[in-house]
Amino acid sequence: MSRIFFDNASTTPIDEQVVEVMTAAMREQYGNPSSIHAEGRRARAAIEQARKTVAHHLGASIGEIFFTSGGTESSNMVLKGAVRDLGVRRIISSRIEHHCVLHSVEALERHADIHVEWVQLDEKGRVDLAHLAHLLKTGTEKTLVSLMHANNEIGTMIDLTVVGNLCREHGALFHSDTVQTVGYFPFDLAQLPIDFITGSAHKFYGPKGTGFVFINGDCPLPPFMDGGGQERNMRGGTENTYGILGLAKALDLAYTHYYERRAHTESLRNYLRERIEQEFPHTIPYGDPGGGHYKLLNIGFPPSPRTDMLLLNLDIAGVSVSGGSACTSGADAGSHVVDALGGKPGWKAVRFSLSHRNTREEVDVVIEKLRTCLS
Amino acid sequence: MSRIFFDNASTTPIDEQVVEVMTAAMREQYGNPSSIHAEGRRARAAIEQARKTVAHHLGASIGEIFFTSGGTESSNMVLKGAVRDLGVRRIISSRIEHHCVLHSVEALERHADIHVEWVQLDEKGRVDLAHLAHLLKTGTEKTLVSLMHANNEIGTMIDLTVVGNLCREHGALFHSDTVQTVGYFPFDLAQLPIDFITGSAHKFYGPKGTGFVFINGDCPLPPFMDGGGQERNMRGGTENTYGILGLAKALDLAYTHYYERRAHTESLRNYLRERIEQEFPHTIPYGDPGGGHYKLLNIGFPPSPRTDMLLLNLDIAGVSVSGGSACTSGADAGSHVVDALGGKPGWKAVRFSLSHRNTREEVDVVIEKLRTCLS
Repeated sequence: MSRIFFDNASTTPIDEQVVEVMTAAMREQYGNPSSIHAEGRRARAAIEQARKTVAHHLGASIGEIFFTSGGTESSNMVLKGAVRDLGVRRIISSRIEHHCVLHSVEALERHADIHVEWVQLDEKGRVDLAHLAHLLKTGTEKTLVSLMHANNEIGTMIDLTVVGNLCREHGALFHSDTVQTVGYFPFDLAQLPIDFITGSAHKFYGPKGTGFVFINGDCPLPPFMDGGGQERNMRGGTENTYGILGLAKALDLAYTHYYERRAHTESLRNYLRERIEQEFPHTIPYGDPGGGHYKLLNIGFPPSPRTDMLLLNLDIAGVSVSGGSACTSGADAGSHVVDALGGKPGWKAVRFSLSHRNTREEVDVVIEKLRTCLS
Repeated sequence: MSRIFFDNASTTPIDEQVVEVMTAAMREQYGNPSSIHAEGRRARAAIEQARKTVAHHLGASIGEIFFTSGGTESSNMVLKGAVRDLGVRRIISSRIEHHCVLHSVEALERHADIHVEWVQLDEKGRVDLAHLAHLLKTGTEKTLVSLMHANNEIGTMIDLTVVGNLCREHGALFHSDTVQTVGYFPFDLAQLPIDFITGSAHKFYGPKGTGFVFINGDCPLPPFMDGGGQERNMRGGTENTYGILGLAKALDLAYTHYYERRAHTESLRNYLRERIEQEFPHTIPYGDPGGGHYKLLNIGFPPSPRTDMLLLNLDIAGVSVSGGSACTSGADAGSHVVDALGGKPGWKAVRFSLSHRNTREEVDVVIEKLRTCLS
């Protein structure tokens, strides 16, 4: 029997159409995009077409999209560049951000003499907007707010317009790690009050090693990677042509099939939630299952010897889920997100993250396997 | 007629065997390498096998090889990390380094209060070792020497052992941008007195967007990209699995076929040089054609209206060469390398960079085309 992959927040399988675009580019688009000869110009034209596709789908200007090696680089570039070159002396963020934000903020605190404030969250991980407004009001230093659009472990979301307007009102810059939502929710960046967002192709059926950063035209950032004059002097390094083309193709597919993918994924997520509630009444949901990301469901299972081995036994049974962010799950360090929200000791958080490729039958099998593993 | 690609220092076509490894990985190795389930473990095992291959061919320990998004990231990581966390207050480098080193050094000079000294070069771009020794002797600050192994425009090389021993003698760290030499020359990193080298897969018939940094076990560097605990906490960001597998395959091919590739490329380069000397006696070679990189030949053509249009007309005639580094050639800004070595105004530098895939017949055609374009 083939395996069931319910870990689509950690990464997604590459769409076959994306593989084909990339393979063709690997064979035909080998020129260095900065070269002025025919091979170079052909690669350059393909990259600029990809940029146009990304900008179009997100409502951005072409000049506001910069390709990077992924979401982590994008967030590092924004946070470190804003402190080094845009005069930011204070960062307001939350304890449940992805480690690419948390560890960048910590590095800045150690090395760049900035001041960090943590916004309060409720038990579902929702931002306390009154506290955010209070923090914004009280500081006098140039401030950057960094709050993720959808949490990668529990799916809880913020309203970008509401948070962005608060930031604008108080003259703060606003960055959102949108790695889990690009390709999953509509964006109209020309209208949104936001300065920086980030994307990672492998979260939406594109390749690993490729991402982008949106930088509002009013907030030019210096390079994080110094080098050649690539990406309009914003990012040194020969462009990953095939990766960029793959990213654009994957994003194009994500928005072309947005409604059906969303409807299918959301109904599966709801079905999985209902089945778990019925079959395992002593579990608790983490996050905001009513309002969070429609691909995510994070469930706490009560302490027992069988719960301890749950992820392992599901894996043996052919079901891939995770305990939290993959980026730290290798280390089995538990979840900083669940911990920050007051997770109870001994309870096991299991993140199910679904895809338009999953089926109702797979949900039924997963419920079966859960029952076996827990009984 | 198919085009002739004599710009193999800017980039190289991906080897078909590498494309196949990458395409298979795109279909089969989609797991997040940090995930603990079967898909993740499979990707992790493939990456660790790739690391073993790279370490083996370069004589390094597995724990000294870290995958990055390319040579530019690798050099940024070393230079900026050494200043931020290894106490480096002085960098000694040269005016003909690649822009990923030059611009990183300039950024550090602006923002990190370091002191930069430029080693003297002779007219062929060779490092004045007596001057380097003098500089090393005179400073008291913790010093990093950054000198490229082979210059990407003119091919001039340094002896890593000689320079490395000088650095060791004076307690300086030693970084070499080896992007043009990894896969082209043997390395025995366990024996070499060197702390950091960098590699970029697309320079040796591998994919763009993937590289590595060698970090001597004695010089642990903190992450340049903060994020998840990837690459043993040295580099955040989900690993570019297919790129890493492609890099390892390309490097394996490069060293498996090292002798025949080198002999063929070198004989072509020598043949091209002889033909140019015969046919165009008023040209001058830049760099060190006797001792430089065997894939490179940089020729100065005397001023004339036809010389101005030479690159363009060769391109129209189906021949791809370059005027210097591709990373700046898009901007047609001339060559900072040739300028730094006292290039004469009006002379046009043409970089021919050859491959084991090129042929003697192609050299003959290029000579024909050069004659047509210049007459």
